[in-house]
Amino acid sequence: MRILSGVFEGQSTGTPIQLMIENTDQRSRDYGDIAQTFRPGHADITYHQKYGLRDYRGGGRSSARETAARVAAGGVARAALEALVPGVEVKGYMTRMGDVTIDRDRFDWAAIDGNDFWIPDAGAVPEWESYLQQIRKAQNSVGAEIEVVARGVPAGLGAPVYGKLDTDLAAAMMSINAVKGVEIGEGMAAAHLKGTDNADEIFMGKDGPEYSSNHAGGVLGGISTGQDVVVRFAVKPTSSILTPRQSIRMDGTATEVVTKGRHDPCVGIRAVPVAEAMMACVILDHLLLHRGQVGGLGPRGQIG
Amino acid sequence: MRILSGVFEGQSTGTPIQLMIENTDQRSRDYGDIAQTFRPGHADITYHQKYGLRDYRGGGRSSARETAARVAAGGVARAALEALVPGVEVKGYMTRMGDVTIDRDRFDWAAIDGNDFWIPDAGAVPEWESYLQQIRKAQNSVGAEIEVVARGVPAGLGAPVYGKLDTDLAAAMMSINAVKGVEIGEGMAAAHLKGTDNADEIFMGKDGPEYSSNHAGGVLGGISTGQDVVVRFAVKPTSSILTPRQSIRMDGTATEVVTKGRHDPCVGIRAVPVAEAMMACVILDHLLLHRGQVGGLGPRGQIG
Amino acid sequence: MRILSGVFEGQSTGTPIQLMIENTDQRSRDYGDIAQTFRPGHADITYHQKYGLRDYRGGGRSSARETAARVAAGGVARAALEALVPGVEVKGYMTRMGDVTIDRDRFDWAAIDGNDFWIPDAGAVPEWESYLQQIRKAQNSVGAEIEVVARGVPAGLGAPVYGKLDTDLAAAMMSINAVKGVEIGEGMAAAHLKGTDNADEIFMGKDGPEYSSNHAGGVLGGISTGQDVVVRFAVKPTSSILTPRQSIRMDGTATEVVTKGRHDPCVGIRAVPVAEAMMACVILDHLLLHRGQVGGLGPRGQIG
Amino acid sequence: MRILSGVFEGQSTGTPIQLMIENTDQRSRDYGDIAQTFRPGHADITYHQKYGLRDYRGGGRSSARETAARVAAGGVARAALEALVPGVEVKGYMTRMGDVTIDRDRFDWAAIDGNDFWIPDAGAVPEWESYLQQIRKAQNSVGAEIEVVARGVPAGLGAPVYGKLDTDLAAAMMSINAVKGVEIGEGMAAAHLKGTDNADEIFMGKDGPEYSSNHAGGVLGGISTGQDVVVRFAVKPTSSILTPRQSIRMDGTATEVVTKGRHDPCVGIRAVPVAEAMMACVILDHLLLHRGQVGGLGPRGQIG
Repeated sequence: MRILSGVFEGQSTGTPIQLMIENTDQRSRDYGDIAQTFRPGHADITYHQKYGLRDYRGGGRSSARETAARVAAGGVARAALEALVPGVEVKGYMTRMGDVTIDRDRFDWAAIDGNDFWIPDAGAVPEWESYLQQIRKAQNSVGAEIEVVARGVPAGLGAPVYGKLDTDLAAAMMSINAVKGVEIGEGMAAAHLKGTDNADEIFMGKDGPEYSSNHAGGVLGGISTGQDVVVRFAVKPTSSILTPRQSIRMDGTATEVVTKGRHDPCVGIRAVPVAEAMMACVILDHLLLHRGQVGGLGPRGQIG
Repeated sequence: MRILSGVFEGQSTGTPIQLMIENTDQRSRDYGDIAQTFRPGHADITYHQKYGLRDYRGGGRSSARETAARVAAGGVARAALEALVPGVEVKGYMTRMGDVTIDRDRFDWAAIDGNDFWIPDAGAVPEWESYLQQIRKAQNSVGAEIEVVARGVPAGLGAPVYGKLDTDLAAAMMSINAVKGVEIGEGMAAAHLKGTDNADEIFMGKDGPEYSSNHAGGVLGGISTGQDVVVRFAVKPTSSILTPRQSIRMDGTATEVVTKGRHDPCVGIRAVPVAEAMMACVILDHLLLHRGQVGGLGPRGQIG
Repeated sequence: MRILSGVFEGQSTGTPIQLMIENTDQRSRDYGDIAQTFRPGHADITYHQKYGLRDYRGGGRSSARETAARVAAGGVARAALEALVPGVEVKGYMTRMGDVTIDRDRFDWAAIDGNDFWIPDAGAVPEWESYLQQIRKAQNSVGAEIEVVARGVPAGLGAPVYGKLDTDLAAAMMSINAVKGVEIGEGMAAAHLKGTDNADEIFMGKDGPEYSSNHAGGVLGGISTGQDVVVRFAVKPTSSILTPRQSIRMDGTATEVVTKGRHDPCVGIRAVPVAEAMMACVILDHLLLHRGQVGGLGPRGQIG
Repeated sequence: MRILSGVFEGQSTGTPIQLMIENTDQRSRDYGDIAQTFRPGHADITYHQKYGLRDYRGGGRSSARETAARVAAGGVARAALEALVPGVEVKGYMTRMGDVTIDRDRFDWAAIDGNDFWIPDAGAVPEWESYLQQIRKAQNSVGAEIEVVARGVPAGLGAPVYGKLDTDLAAAMMSINAVKGVEIGEGMAAAHLKGTDNADEIFMGKDGPEYSSNHAGGVLGGISTGQDVVVRFAVKPTSSILTPRQSIRMDGTATEVVTKGRHDPCVGIRAVPVAEAMMACVILDHLLLHRGQVGGLGPRGQIG
C-alpha cells in the first residue's frame, strides 16, 4: 500500500488521505469464457445490462478486492476515532456460517482474535472448521452472519430525520459486496417482540443513564444512546462455485457455468474486518458532524 | 395538504414541489410529565442528550407523524414513476405481526388492499384481528415485518460501488421511524444458504433474461436485474404503552412511565404505505440517475 | 413570516428551521400577454426551453421575491454566527449604481444604515437619488455593484482544494438573481497588478499576524486569514422596463415587449440585504465545518 | 499519467475513471527556510493556521501543480461532451496580462492556438512577449484575465434556484488557484449598464431563437440560452517573486522573503487550459443532470 497524499512527517495534514493498493495478484490468463458468460448470482449480467460493457478480469469493480480499500480507510478512521475518544473499541465477529452458529452463553470477547473465523468461542472452532471443510469438498459455498460492535461511543451521535446514525450504518453495511440484510440491535427479530419486552428500561448510574437491556442496539430515534452500537449483517454465499449452474451467454445462448479460481467457500470470514472498517468510518463521520453542530464530542444535554 | 410550489395548472414545473400537511390534530394539554421524563425505547433521551433540549409535544420531530411527509412525497414519486415506466407497480404488505405471520402458499396479491392489515390473504384477517385485539387489551404493543415489492423496474438501475441500489434502499427503509432491520431478497436468511441454493439460474426468455428464482431480490452488484425488487423490514413495537416501565427524569431521579394517548398497538400497519413511498422515491431517483448517465430508462447492454 | 419547525420555546432545537413567507402581494390580473411572450434578458425563455412550461405569474420561481427566503435564512445564520463568534459583523453596501460610484476616501461605515441606498457616504445620497430619478423617468433601469464585508471572521475557515471558502462565496453570490460577476478582494483588478503590489506583507501584531493591506480579501488558498472577508458583485439592470424591446412569442412570431408592474429601476438596492444574508450563511457553514474537522472555532496552528 | 480505473479496452466502463500524474519534478533540496516562513500572498500561513501543520514541499496541496488534475479530468469531460453534442467547442484565451490587453476588434479565433499566450491576435504577440520579458527582468510577476467560451451548448442546461449553471461556473472558476474574480457575460460591467442596453433582444431564426447580443453570456435565470457561454476570470500575480517582501516566521519573528525556484512571472498563461477543463466539466455535469431530469440532451420546450 502506498500513501499518495494527506500525510506529512507521520501526521495527517488535514487534506484528503489517498491510499493506493495495487492489485499484484491478478494472473494473466484466458478470460474468454467469463467474458462472454454471465455467472448466476454475480454482477456480470447487471453490469453488462447497465453499461453495455464490463471489465470481466477478476470480476472487475464487482470483485471483493474492492473491500481492501474499505479496510484501509477503516484503519485511518479507527486511528482518528481512538485519538478523539480514548477507550472506544470496534470489534467484529462471525455469529453464523450456514448451519453453524455461536452460542451466546459462551460468548468470549477475548477469543475473537485468536481464531481464523473471528468467532467469540475458542471451543467452537473445530466444529466450524469441519463444517467449512465439508462445504469446500462439496464444491459449494455458504453464507454467513457478522456482528460488529462499537463500544464507548458517546451518546448524541446522529440526527432525528436526515443523517440518522442507523440510516448511515445500514447504508454502509449494505454497500459491502454480497450483503443482503442489515440489523441494528434486535433487527428483524423486533417484529416478534412485544412492547413490554422491547423496552430498554432506564436507570441512573454513576456516570449517567444506564439501561436494563440493549434491544435498541445503541440507537434511539437515529441518535446514539451511549450503549454499545450493535450492527449485524448477512452475506450471501459466493456465487463463484465449482458446481455447475445454468446460465446464458451474451448472445443469449444457454450454457453451464463452473467458476474456477481462488474463491473462498465463505466470504463471511473476510467480511469481518470490512465490517469493522465500515463501522469505524460511520462512527467517525458522525463524531465530526456532531462536533460541528454541537461543539464537542459528547452529549450537550446533561442528565441528573 | 397544500401544494406550496412546483405545480402549475396541474403539471409539475420542473422545480421542487413542496407539500405542507398541517398538524391539526395536536391537542392542547399538559405535557408537564412527558417534558421531564424519558420514555424507555423512545428518542426522548437521545434528543435531550444531543441538543440539551427537545420539543416534547406529540413526540416532536421523532413522532411518526413525520412519515406523512414521506407518504406525500411517495405519491409524487409514484406518479412520475408510472409516467416514465408504464406498468411499474409498487406494493407493500405485512408479513408478520408478533406471533402471526402470512402463509406464502396462500399469497394473494389482490387481497392486499382489501383488509386493514394490508395482508395478502383475506382468510387470515380474523386471526390477525383477534391477535391485535389481545395485544391492545394487554395494554401492550407488538412489532411487525413489512415487505415491499417493486415490479416492472427496468434492469440497470444502480451503480457498482457508490450509489448502489441496495445501499439506497437500505438507507431509505432504515430511516423510517422504528425500523430495526432491512433485508433485500433472501436478507438475513442468506447466512443459512449454500451457493448451490442461492444461485438464481439464468435462462433466455422471449423478452430477455429470465431467472429460476429471485434470492437476490432483484439486485445484483448494486444494480437492478429487472426482476421484482423485494425489500423487507422490521419495525419494533411502539415504546408508548400503558404498561408501566422503569425510567428516569431529567434530574436523574427514578420514575415509572405509562404512556397515554392515541398510540397504535402495532405501528407496522401504518408502515405499509410508508414503505411503498420510500420504495417509489428510491426507484425514481435511480431511474433519473440512470437516464442521466446512460441516456435512457432501460438497459444499454442488450442480450441475445 | 411563520416558523414552521425547528424552534421551541424561543430556542432552535437542533433540527431544520423552516420559515414560510406567503406571497400576499400578488395581484390577480391578466397575465395573458406575459404567458405567451418572452421578455428579453429574462428567464422566461430558458425556463420554457428547459421544461416546456413555466409559471409566468409574477415571474414564478425566477422572481426576485425568491430572495426573501435568503434574507430570512440569513437572519438565522447571523444570529448563530454572533452567538458563536462575539463581535463578528456582516455588512453590505452599494459601491456603484450605473454612472454613480462611491468615493473610497469618504467611506463612512456608520452612514450605511442611514440612507435608502445603503451607501457609506451620507453626502452622496442626493446625487444617487437624482440619478435614480432620472433613470426612472427615462423608463429605464440600471445595474449596480454591491460589496459585503465580514469582519471578525476567525482565521482558518475553508479548505485547500474542495470546499474552499472563496469557491463557496462565489457560488453563493452568483446564485442571487441578476448577479453577473463576483470578486474577492482585488477581484478582476488582480489582472492589472504586479506581484510586488499585490503582496499583503505580514507583520506580527499583538494578537497575531497583521497585514499591510488586504488585496486577498481575507482569503488565501481557500482559507480565511482573519482579515476582513471582502466580496463584491454586480447585478445587471432589471430586464423589466417600460421601454419597448424586440422579442418573440412562444409561437415564434415577433412582438414588442413593455413590462408594466412594480419593478424597481435598480434591483441592486434590494440586493444589499441579500448579500449580507448569503455571506452570513457561507461563513456559518464554514465555521461549523471547521469546528467539525479541527475541533474549535479558531485556528489550530499558533504563530509566535 | 496512468489510468488507474474506469477504462477497459479503450472505453469507459461507466465507473469512476481515476487518473494519476506522479510529480517527478520535485527536486530534493533544503526547504528549511520555506518550512518556517510564510510567503506573503501565499497559502502558507492559512494552512498553518487551520491545521497546525503543512506540507511545505513545492507548496504542497496549494501548489499550482494541483491544476494538472483538473486538466486531465477536463480531457475526459471534453471527450464525453464532444461525443454527446457534436460540434460543441470549448476554447479559452487570455484577454489581459497586467497592462496589455487584447483588441476585441482584431479578435481572431484561429490565432489562439498559434501563440504561447493563447491570445486571439497574432499581431499582438510581440508586445505581450516584450511586456512579460520586462516583468521577468524586474523580478516581478503580473496578473491576468482569461476568457473561456463554450460554443454549441444546448439551451436548457441548469436550474432555476439550486444548481444554476452560472453558480456552478462561478464556483468552478473561483476554485482554481489564484483566481480572485469571475464574470459571466457582461460580468462586473453589468453594474454600469442601463436596462435598454443590457437587453439581448430576441428574434426568430431558422433553427430557433436568435439574439441581437449576448450580454447575458449565454445564461438567463441559471439556465443556458443556447448562445455562447462566456466566462471570464482574473488570476492574481503569483506571490512567489524574487523581490523581497516583509513577512514573519512561525515563531512570530520578522523576516524578508524572496522566493527562488521555477516560478512563472504570469500564471495566467497556464490558467488557460485549466479554464477550458473546468468549463468542460461543468457543462458535462449539467448536460447529464439535464438528461436525467428532462430526458434528452436538448430543450424540451419548443418555440415556433
